[in-house]
Amino acid sequence: MEEQVEIVGRAFVDHYYHLFDTDRASLSSLYQPTSMLTFEGQRVVGVHDITEKLSQLPFDQCQHLISSIDSQPYSTNGTAGIVVFVSGSLRLPGEEHPLRFSQMFHLIPSPAGSFFAQNDMFRLNYG
Amino acid sequence: MEEQVEIVGRAFVDHYYHLFDTDRASLSSLYQPTSMLTFEGQRVVGVHDITEKLSQLPFDQCQHLISSIDSQPYSTNGTAGIVVFVSGSLRLPGEEHPLRFSQMFHLIPSPAGSFFAQNDMFRLNYG
Repeated sequence: MEEQVEIVGRAFVDHYYHLFDTDRASLSSLYQPTSMLTFEGQRVVGVHDITEKLSQLPFDQCQHLISSIDSQPYSTNGTAGIVVFVSGSLRLPGEEHPLRFSQMFHLIPSPAGSFFAQNDMFRLNYG
Repeated sequence: MEEQVEIVGRAFVDHYYHLFDTDRASLSSLYQPTSMLTFEGQRVVGVHDITEKLSQLPFDQCQHLISSIDSQPYSTNGTAGIVVFVSGSLRLPGEEHPLRFSQMFHLIPSPAGSFFAQNDMFRLNYG
């Protein structure tokens, strides 16, 4: 039976890549003002700058294919967060071979009762 | 100039792989009873089970080569933690080609004033 934390992790990841591949600007709903994104080593902070960074990536269309999702809970000082570790591949228009990537999310409960991405780090895996 | 969080992340990662490659049993010093390791999808909890899992991997000698280290801080309810995202390759004895891997650590301050790995997730990146 899938653990609760794995259900949450998988739901977040599915939602994240669905938005990324269909309506990238709406990813803003998954971040908060304290959120950070490091994309290929470049760090941006806050909903506006993260959304701008993701919108300005040099490809308009893409498709994420997920290979694995690992999720772990933690609890410290009253915060129960989740860390999620994803591997997969990214299919770009005009590219014959998909690009392998890894990405991690640190999810923290939001005031609204769902989770937001406090930390988000993305790397392509060069072969 | 390297930020403090990047210095801490890099120091932890360098120390972790140095211990892994030279004295794997001593990795126990970097975990606490609440720590979790997910290694290629298999999760173990606590210092003893994590150290046992790492000791029983089907290779005695190895060498980690680091390609990138990304580190981000976060602060919530009085806890200031760090998430660290590593990519690199793993050289095994008798293997001509190193294996690509990605790994993430969630570091929390320990009572002793250093950091321990609350969460640790490892995946090989198959090409």
